[in-house]
Amino acid sequence: MNIELEFIPALLVILLAAGVGRLLSRKIRQPAILGELILGMIIGSFIIIAPAAQNPISDVAEIGILLLLFSIGMDLDLEKFKKLAVPASEVAAGGVILPFILGYLIAVFYGFSVEVALFVGAALVATSVGISASILRESGKLRTKVGTLIMGSAVVDDVVGIIMMTVLFGVATTGTLPVLDTLLLILFAILFFVISLTLGPIALGKVSERISVGRENLLLIGLAIVLAFALITEEIGLAAIIGAFVAGLVVGQTHFARSLEGSVSLIGGGFFIPIFFVTMGMGFELDAFTSVGMFAIILIILAVAGKIIGCSLGAKASKFSNRESLAAGVAMVPRAEVALIIASFGFKHGIIEADIVSTILVMVIFTTLVTPTPLWKILKKVK
Amino acid sequence: MNIELEFIPALLVILLAAGVGRLLSRKIRQPAILGELILGMIIGSFIIIAPAAQNPISDVAEIGILLLLFSIGMDLDLEKFKKLAVPASEVAAGGVILPFILGYLIAVFYGFSVEVALFVGAALVATSVGISASILRESGKLRTKVGTLIMGSAVVDDVVGIIMMTVLFGVATTGTLPVLDTLLLILFAILFFVISLTLGPIALGKVSERISVGRENLLLIGLAIVLAFALITEEIGLAAIIGAFVAGLVVGQTHFARSLEGSVSLIGGGFFIPIFFVTMGMGFELDAFTSVGMFAIILIILAVAGKIIGCSLGAKASKFSNRESLAAGVAMVPRAEVALIIASFGFKHGIIEADIVSTILVMVIFTTLVTPTPLWKILKKVK
Repeated sequence: MNIELEFIPALLVILLAAGVGRLLSRKIRQPAILGELILGMIIGSFIIIAPAAQNPISDVAEIGILLLLFSIGMDLDLEKFKKLAVPASEVAAGGVILPFILGYLIAVFYGFSVEVALFVGAALVATSVGISASILRESGKLRTKVGTLIMGSAVVDDVVGIIMMTVLFGVATTGTLPVLDTLLLILFAILFFVISLTLGPIALGKVSERISVGRENLLLIGLAIVLAFALITEEIGLAAIIGAFVAGLVVGQTHFARSLEGSVSLIGGGFFIPIFFVTMGMGFELDAFTSVGMFAIILIILAVAGKIIGCSLGAKASKFSNRESLAAGVAMVPRAEVALIIASFGFKHGIIEADIVSTILVMVIFTTLVTPTPLWKILKKVK
Repeated sequence: MNIELEFIPALLVILLAAGVGRLLSRKIRQPAILGELILGMIIGSFIIIAPAAQNPISDVAEIGILLLLFSIGMDLDLEKFKKLAVPASEVAAGGVILPFILGYLIAVFYGFSVEVALFVGAALVATSVGISASILRESGKLRTKVGTLIMGSAVVDDVVGIIMMTVLFGVATTGTLPVLDTLLLILFAILFFVISLTLGPIALGKVSERISVGRENLLLIGLAIVLAFALITEEIGLAAIIGAFVAGLVVGQTHFARSLEGSVSLIGGGFFIPIFFVTMGMGFELDAFTSVGMFAIILIILAVAGKIIGCSLGAKASKFSNRESLAAGVAMVPRAEVALIIASFGFKHGIIEADIVSTILVMVIFTTLVTPTPLWKILKKVK
């Protein structure tokens, strides 16, 4: 039996689920996010959000992921982040290339066409940063070298994933390589990072020295900055969360940071972020598991192993310790939005069949649920 | 030219409007809310929120008014509030009876039917508590005797307004007095207040002594409590804001209150509440002013004078000072939701014409905009 809920009751149920999920997580010494996701899955299987309330709930959830990335950006040390740009790119590269090749090969091996295999490979590429960011925050290892490395790799990975998606969708719809679109996207991405991270702190730093505002007004200003950065990245064609993260890096350099960090993590952690993770869990359609065959099982194993091995090798290449390299690898395992976008695009254009979409969905659910506990344990042992 | 905005850009524009509005208010030494309302009016005249974003924005705004009432409830002293129940009822009674009679008489005098006159009278009754609550908070006079009196009167006034609405709508649609509905509403309202304010603090107090949670989890619990109370009052037939306010009174008696107060006023004041007031301003259709005639002008004067005189007399009857009585009267001037609901109901059922709807809308805009400054000044002089 499904119960349909309007906005306020749906919000109440989601908050209660988050609360119960966190409580249970704490009892069995697991990260909070695992409980939130699982409680979301449970309530999602018998509660439906009424159509009129779907937009509001998902918009509130989106603010959650923006605030998570924003507060993580604020927490990080921009200088350390810049210094780790090369290692982070190596980790991302390892985690992009290996899963893509493995996904492509297994699909070809199972007799799918080259086009289908390209979609399957691409769906394994983009990491979903939310899970690992949340675990990093909760384990208190965000400001360590490996924490900074993971966040850097996740950003590079996200940008690469979006560029791959642009190329793939262009080829799939027009049959030709969308050279101009891709070059423009890369150009805009570079311009955005360079301008934000050089001029941003200077401009905002001057503003922050001149004005003194109360805690409430500062929060209002901070939220306006996040939304503005999120909009800019969305306009460019990148993900809004990248904008939110960069906004955090920039604001983190100013006088605003000290007071704003507490406010943002309070309203994020106490309201918006749990809503994001519970609704993420609610979106997991467990029916997809019924169609899982051998191909799906192998693909999922490759999705996990590909990221762990690829990213760990990247980290090792930059002389990180074994444990740090493993942490970086495990942190990059979860996939979400980009994989689902690729799957639904491929399905809509008749390139991949429903069973491959289900397989990708199961891969997303599995990689999301399997990551928090081991990552949490590995990070605890990292110095 | 109208620009149509999706959720994130609309939210950004609203936050910026709130920021600018507050800044300008501070420069000209006016309460923040006035700037928020006026900036809302200004952006509302050339910005439209896209249909898909309308639900999310108004839901976020609704959380704002719930949080405002919740935090005000937490701030108030429940014992003082109970002691002032009788004076508050007198203030509310004066402010209900006089405007209703004046509205009814002027409509009859202008040749409208008895039915129309009843609707006009009823539209003048219900105070909109948000404006005065916000001014009380900002002027730091919430915990004074007159602050508690004003909040008590506003709650009584709201309940009476909703009961009147139930009666009026019943008569208008069925032609008979909805005795059962009205009695049930009154019964449920009494039960709700008695149970919440006696058992609530005891039950929640025991819970709060047993569990110790971090700031974020406490906020999550607090928000779940507000939403639960709001839902209960809505189910009964009362306004959700009354539930939120009572939730605040109850939580205010527990160990939760100290830490939760700061968190709720931070996320309310820094995000949700300004969104509520700016969107309220955006809803003001200034076209309505074009049809204002002598009847409208007189009606608006009576709407203002009726509340000030009626409520002040009620306060004087309970031996409040002249200045305190005036503050109580002015605080009850703003009308909003209930008046608009009555107007649109009457219009939809063919009882009142479009020009009376416009007149009521202008009355709402005028009483809302005219209140903050004088109330702010009078309250500053109250000891």
